[in-house]
Amino acid sequence: MSIEENKIFLPKTQIPKNWYNVLPDLPEPLGPYLGPDRQPVKVSDLAAIFPKDLIEQEVSSQAIHPIPEPVLEALSIWRPTPLVRARRLEKALGVKSRIYYKDESVSPSGSHKSNTAMAQAYYNQIAGITRLTTETGAGQWGTALAIAAKHFGLDVRVFMVKVSLTQKPYRKVIMNLMGAEVFPSPSELTKAGREALAKDPNTLGTLGLAISEAVEEAVSRPDTNYVLGSVLNHVILHQTVIGQEVQQQLALAGEKPDYLIACHGGGSNFGGLVTPYVPMLKSGEKLVAIAAEPASCPTLTAGKFTYDAGDTAGFTPLMPMYSLGTDFQPPAIHAGGLRYHGASPIVSSLLKSGLIQAQAVSAEDVFKYAKLLAYSEYVIPAPESAHALAVTCLKALELEKEGQSGCLVFTLSGHGLLDLSAYDQPI
Amino acid sequence: MSIEENKIFLPKTQIPKNWYNVLPDLPEPLGPYLGPDRQPVKVSDLAAIFPKDLIEQEVSSQAIHPIPEPVLEALSIWRPTPLVRARRLEKALGVKSRIYYKDESVSPSGSHKSNTAMAQAYYNQIAGITRLTTETGAGQWGTALAIAAKHFGLDVRVFMVKVSLTQKPYRKVIMNLMGAEVFPSPSELTKAGREALAKDPNTLGTLGLAISEAVEEAVSRPDTNYVLGSVLNHVILHQTVIGQEVQQQLALAGEKPDYLIACHGGGSNFGGLVTPYVPMLKSGEKLVAIAAEPASCPTLTAGKFTYDAGDTAGFTPLMPMYSLGTDFQPPAIHAGGLRYHGASPIVSSLLKSGLIQAQAVSAEDVFKYAKLLAYSEYVIPAPESAHALAVTCLKALELEKEGQSGCLVFTLSGHGLLDLSAYDQPI
Repeated sequence: MSIEENKIFLPKTQIPKNWYNVLPDLPEPLGPYLGPDRQPVKVSDLAAIFPKDLIEQEVSSQAIHPIPEPVLEALSIWRPTPLVRARRLEKALGVKSRIYYKDESVSPSGSHKSNTAMAQAYYNQIAGITRLTTETGAGQWGTALAIAAKHFGLDVRVFMVKVSLTQKPYRKVIMNLMGAEVFPSPSELTKAGREALAKDPNTLGTLGLAISEAVEEAVSRPDTNYVLGSVLNHVILHQTVIGQEVQQQLALAGEKPDYLIACHGGGSNFGGLVTPYVPMLKSGEKLVAIAAEPASCPTLTAGKFTYDAGDTAGFTPLMPMYSLGTDFQPPAIHAGGLRYHGASPIVSSLLKSGLIQAQAVSAEDVFKYAKLLAYSEYVIPAPESAHALAVTCLKALELEKEGQSGCLVFTLSGHGLLDLSAYDQPI
Repeated sequence: MSIEENKIFLPKTQIPKNWYNVLPDLPEPLGPYLGPDRQPVKVSDLAAIFPKDLIEQEVSSQAIHPIPEPVLEALSIWRPTPLVRARRLEKALGVKSRIYYKDESVSPSGSHKSNTAMAQAYYNQIAGITRLTTETGAGQWGTALAIAAKHFGLDVRVFMVKVSLTQKPYRKVIMNLMGAEVFPSPSELTKAGREALAKDPNTLGTLGLAISEAVEEAVSRPDTNYVLGSVLNHVILHQTVIGQEVQQQLALAGEKPDYLIACHGGGSNFGGLVTPYVPMLKSGEKLVAIAAEPASCPTLTAGKFTYDAGDTAGFTPLMPMYSLGTDFQPPAIHAGGLRYHGASPIVSSLLKSGLIQAQAVSAEDVFKYAKLLAYSEYVIPAPESAHALAVTCLKALELEKEGQSGCLVFTLSGHGLLDLSAYDQPI
């Protein structure tokens, strides 16, 4: 009988109790965030839109941050998430490599975004904030924040990139169901939105512009803070539960990873999986970490390492990162979460120092391997996650061709059930 | 720290190895299926559309049917499914009762339908059949069959009730992705479809008519068999893995159920949960089983126990069951899986003998408690499953009012992520 346990579960007692802060472990210290005058931003400047605790996390040199009990309780709704051995995918590919995926799709929002959404909603709540604004691309972040805000009793307004709202109408339904307001971006609600519409009424919107709208509104209201679902250091901090659980689960499986692969939009999914492995990457042990990005928005593989703003209007500080430029208009690829001109400063620093690699994949390969996962494992990945899947499959096939095999781990950062329109169109 | 295990998992070794056949345990033997001449149908008459093994199961007097190894392997992709203690729902309701749900939404299709889809695809494959036709209402069954057919290498044509196809376009995408053909019913492909369209070109379609189309096509082609996702005895047989797992899981939790509640469309979900408990129900032990149905399609609570056809055109045998009549046109409720005029003969027999109860719920209550589940457990139920949820919540509140409490178990037969349009409209 060939029925094998293919999911590695951890008991609830094994949820990581701390977040791992990679900042003190980076090969080079991160450059400071700069203001419009190119002078370092003061922590107090950020207080208009972020609560004290998150600002402290953003610049912390403390290696370990205990997870507050209410956040642990919230995470325990779905964590630890399973690590799954994709045996039928291995068979379909015809490879001897062992392929595992960390299944973040089991969260209430269907993606890894819930990890930081719960933490950010909590810190804003204890700071006396009653209302949050944010942007969302694919809708995963907006969904996660809507649920987290509901959990901690906050109101939410979401600016959703227009092209994604059109492609994924169900995302709005689910955010509304959870009590959040959702507007297509650019909207008439903000100066940044009105200017963009005046310039081009038919614009598809970008993540950068949606960030401008959300920040503009948060700055203008004392009851309202802004929350970001990726890019920033504190977001990656909250996502390190992913990599820490993978470390425990691989140990249970008797495995040591050869490849860690995650898709990269703003960097939170990749950072969450990989940063807990930075000490190992630095130690020179055999381990390759690859950030997978779309060939049509190749921030890490074709962008420039520079100081650039995180949004289109330039409301955010300038950050040291790989960027395609704030005016980069990505094509309407079906992975809204990867339509971002910039990258996390942490991931940018890791790439610049050579500790990690980046690889761009074509939409053809992304959908080819997404279908293979659907056919073999009966799992429909989010288009974002399918980028990591594609790089994983290509790498496993490459190893096979060289007569080798290895242990490859990728993050299934989300399921694709709310992104099915992406699978309904020829590439 | 208030983090508690709320999911009761079973190891893969605990997947039930047998299906439980309730037929020999029914208080009264089922009346035979009748032909158009009202004479009992001969087993050989069914051979035009069903394989031998399934026909044998349909009329079997054998208490236990071993599950074939290839089916066990297929089920092990997602089974055993978790039994979840809905503590946050209990808290939101303010009840002392313990509420559990059996989470069938974790299957590849997102619903319990995969349990029988895998079995039926297998038996057709070993009978040399290469092509299957079926109908689908909500789309859960069509999705499950598309995946099962892919698993066992068969082609599939799905007739989907037109109103459901319009409400749930993603369902077609996922079935197509898995290699199935999908047509709105009524279609021009069959005589039954063409006649219905001639009568009313704007008809919304019904499950009964879609069955007629699928049966008509299967009868006319030797390579093609018909498969049904509910109603029939062999379908309920395959679903008994649900109730058998619940028995093991409740024992692990140290619980004895007071109420078993499942929604009822054709009867497979309800039968799967409840029939393994028939010996206990007959023993006179304290246990109440309730079939939850929509007030707008009240087959069990307002239908007549009679001999009626399973489809609109009258291609199926006449079966002894509760029915609203084959020409009943249910309103366009957002629970396509419950838009059926008839009921499973097994469930009908259990109801007639007084071993089980039935309860109709209003759409208002269904969506009210669906939202409560979304708000408390961060789980969006399929509209069908929300009927069982609503009856469960109403019963728990009723017990509370009487100063009592109990152990209530309902089936979350599917998730609602592909049914979100239902949540986007006022009742």
